[in-house]
Amino acid sequence: MTAPDRRPIGVFDSGIGGLTVVRALMDRLPFENILYFGDTARVPYGSKSVSTIQSYTRQIAEFLLARDVKALIIACNTMAAVAADIVREVAGDVPVLDVIDAGSRAAAAASRSGDIAVIATPTTINANAYARAIHQINPDARVYSQACPLFVPLVEEGWLDHAVTRLTAEEYLKTVLIENVDTLVLGCTHYPLLKPLLADVAGGGIELVDSAVTTAESTAQTLGALNLLNGPSPETHYRYFVTDIPLKFQTIGERFLGRSIQRLEMVNL
Amino acid sequence: MTAPDRRPIGVFDSGIGGLTVVRALMDRLPFENILYFGDTARVPYGSKSVSTIQSYTRQIAEFLLARDVKALIIACNTMAAVAADIVREVAGDVPVLDVIDAGSRAAAAASRSGDIAVIATPTTINANAYARAIHQINPDARVYSQACPLFVPLVEEGWLDHAVTRLTAEEYLKTVLIENVDTLVLGCTHYPLLKPLLADVAGGGIELVDSAVTTAESTAQTLGALNLLNGPSPETHYRYFVTDIPLKFQTIGERFLGRSIQRLEMVNL
Repeated sequence: MTAPDRRPIGVFDSGIGGLTVVRALMDRLPFENILYFGDTARVPYGSKSVSTIQSYTRQIAEFLLARDVKALIIACNTMAAVAADIVREVAGDVPVLDVIDAGSRAAAAASRSGDIAVIATPTTINANAYARAIHQINPDARVYSQACPLFVPLVEEGWLDHAVTRLTAEEYLKTVLIENVDTLVLGCTHYPLLKPLLADVAGGGIELVDSAVTTAESTAQTLGALNLLNGPSPETHYRYFVTDIPLKFQTIGERFLGRSIQRLEMVNL
Repeated sequence: MTAPDRRPIGVFDSGIGGLTVVRALMDRLPFENILYFGDTARVPYGSKSVSTIQSYTRQIAEFLLARDVKALIIACNTMAAVAADIVREVAGDVPVLDVIDAGSRAAAAASRSGDIAVIATPTTINANAYARAIHQINPDARVYSQACPLFVPLVEEGWLDHAVTRLTAEEYLKTVLIENVDTLVLGCTHYPLLKPLLADVAGGGIELVDSAVTTAESTAQTLGALNLLNGPSPETHYRYFVTDIPLKFQTIGERFLGRSIQRLEMVNL
């Protein structure tokens, strides 16, 4: 029996979307302390070039490693798609988990037919990261991808069950539903908020893979295997670092997190 | 008769939207040389805090002033709303024009009833800049404002005449159309691309004020009054500086500009 490891888990995203991963972590690992970093001054990464995303990602990983995290979670599909290697390089012995790896494993496990749809931002889709990761697990899988650039602004507008969002989802999902997929990967941390609507548009018989939930599960397994879990503790510490506090940050952030945000701190990178 | 002034006009925006102003300038002032600056690595400004926007705006104005521009045009409603004073301070004797000033003058002149609607990004609306500028010209005007955060991503998706965009416009315009306005100010440089659809949703009897066109007109008058116009010239130079070259930049940029983009240069601020 090793001593409980009180060091926090570092979770980061380009903005607030990664809070859906934090929420899933709080549910799955209620004794863990968490440091969240959201690069709200430079969001969105999805429309930036690969070299810019890589340089920003390195800065954030170094910021969290300097605060003695015991694991790093890349809670941003765009960063996971194009900069996961850089994070693993700067992290050294600290384990690194990411939403694409976790989501791909869950999708490969869930699909019986091997026909899998992935929806995400344009950069994630163009990087082809889900298709590559799924093929490493199941070389026979057929992966159909669709970029959905309007879903992030629709979620941030709060139109989670609006006719506009439904019509947009019908338009985007048309191209992948025609392929008779049995699994739909929500490849962006904003998308879990659209899960009820997407399940409805996708129709019965299609399993939705929520990469926030699968990443939390993966984290629990990895920390357990490495003896890095914290033990039961009278209080848990959550801290949120952001590079800017934009309009409606609190409202939107709390919608993602499912609870109130305390200890919000603004930092300059 | 003074000598023609060959120095370029500096036009800047947080991203590519300001290219609609460049397009209007090319049409109105075909002999003028133009330097465009788009802060594509840090776009969008509309969701950032005021202090961040002010610091970015100062950097861009200084970048263009160092390249000997004869006038500065703030082709971004968000920057014009919260950082126009900073640009005028660093510009010294160089004239500064901005889309809010030009759009407000045009709206006040166009409206017979004094009932004016303004649509823009959340930051521009929250800064209340159009209402203040219109009231300075016509203290009796009634200004009705509506933030339309989904219009920018819809334009960038290219859904300029799509059922989703129409439904979104109906939803956003509902609150201002009920006030019987006779003038609708397009308070964001992305919105001119939605002009046909917005005119249709607004219905007859409502004049649309396109701040790109009104800014070009204002610039022509100001340069003329200050003897800063260029004379007829065998060739005109257009240069485009950006802080990042994102996916689909060329496609989207040329849709805004209405012609091909040559001499694109990436810079770090």
